[in-house]
Amino acid sequence: MTEKRVEVCFSPYHIPLYELAKKAVVVIDVYRATSAIVAGMGSGIEKIIPVSTVEEARTYLKKGYKVAAERKGAVVEGFDLGNSPIGFSDPVLKGSTVVLTTSNGTKALIKAKAAKEVVVGSFLNQKAVVDYIHENHDNVMLLAAGWRDRFNLEDTLVCGAMAQDLLAMGWITDCDSCLGAMHLYDTAKDNIKGFMKNASHTNRLAHLKLDDDIAYCNRKDVFDVVPIYKNNEIVVEHVAKTS
Amino acid sequence: MTEKRVEVCFSPYHIPLYELAKKAVVVIDVYRATSAIVAGMGSGIEKIIPVSTVEEARTYLKKGYKVAAERKGAVVEGFDLGNSPIGFSDPVLKGSTVVLTTSNGTKALIKAKAAKEVVVGSFLNQKAVVDYIHENHDNVMLLAAGWRDRFNLEDTLVCGAMAQDLLAMGWITDCDSCLGAMHLYDTAKDNIKGFMKNASHTNRLAHLKLDDDIAYCNRKDVFDVVPIYKNNEIVVEHVAKTS
Repeated sequence: MTEKRVEVCFSPYHIPLYELAKKAVVVIDVYRATSAIVAGMGSGIEKIIPVSTVEEARTYLKKGYKVAAERKGAVVEGFDLGNSPIGFSDPVLKGSTVVLTTSNGTKALIKAKAAKEVVVGSFLNQKAVVDYIHENHDNVMLLAAGWRDRFNLEDTLVCGAMAQDLLAMGWITDCDSCLGAMHLYDTAKDNIKGFMKNASHTNRLAHLKLDDDIAYCNRKDVFDVVPIYKNNEIVVEHVAKTS
Repeated sequence: MTEKRVEVCFSPYHIPLYELAKKAVVVIDVYRATSAIVAGMGSGIEKIIPVSTVEEARTYLKKGYKVAAERKGAVVEGFDLGNSPIGFSDPVLKGSTVVLTTSNGTKALIKAKAAKEVVVGSFLNQKAVVDYIHENHDNVMLLAAGWRDRFNLEDTLVCGAMAQDLLAMGWITDCDSCLGAMHLYDTAKDNIKGFMKNASHTNRLAHLKLDDDIAYCNRKDVFDVVPIYKNNEIVVEHVAKTS
């Protein structure tokens, strides 16, 4: 078997330190952008167009698109949707194209563009993503979207969970971020909600009452879709075989 | 009591994201630059001048200084010392000034210059540093020197250990890197050597046979000195009261 190698990057800010051209990158913003993308595409959204700024999002709104915009955890004024995975799985969106801008997740996607392939990951499609990477790539970076370019715990846990799965399939790592993420996932896995109690995200967004969204995002393998970001849009290229 | 706040930064590359002017920064490069500085100053070196490049180090060599230079874990050709804490505690250096350049640690020190005060930390002087910070500061960043601007496990463990001590003294944190470092230290603390077995540092430098140095660096509270970096040189400003 070719030696298959996984690494973890804790923040899009670090992207300039890496050579991405020969790697797949899995972008993870579990609370909530990439969970919303996975839930939305798993529920029938056909295409998602990530954009960097609220201004850019507004231009799509004027053109008649369905547009989702989140800043500081809340829906931006003038938009109908933010980054709630529950909102994204609304049947009314089935078959549609949705434009999306968020604080961290969409920026991470756009920064990862130089990769061989950019995959959207979350707990919700953990197994589908891991299987897809195993079948199609030899090098992968699991990229935590983080918070304002800094490390965050929640995305790190998803990185750790996926890295553990890959190592169990014979992949290797020589990356301390990957080892650290796996250790943290080991500590957290039996009680992710409890582990996250003191995390900065929890305190920062407590006033927004996101408990239902967070509980939604913490569930594993709810969807078998593997959304791929290419040519500036996200489409589902792969639906995992159900076992 | 004033609210005292600790944060952890996993890499000097992240420094531009932070406002340092009102914070003390503890720079940690446990394998081995900051451990060497602590061991050296604890053993009587009077002053250490950190410089960024080997070229700069050579100019000091020509002027007759004692100069230590490390790259890729080894002593650079033409120099007598690298970053071994055992080398730095040689009695022959007592009372002298030593110029030092290393791959990660000295760069981190120089990058932290904008801080209110820059302190040199390691396991070797963990308690002395924590007590000094508690007595003299309200805000501290524990800065892991990392490896080539990336996260590493060993420096993170020292950050986690010091953060735990500060929290036990009533300090608070709202920083996920700090929470993550404390969790990792919890996982590692009963067997740091074993925990580090798979870390990138261990594999990268295995051929250099650094076991004695690493074992030296893993020991806690051997020295009671708090080296401070100011005006481009490191001096001991504070020797902790022995309990």
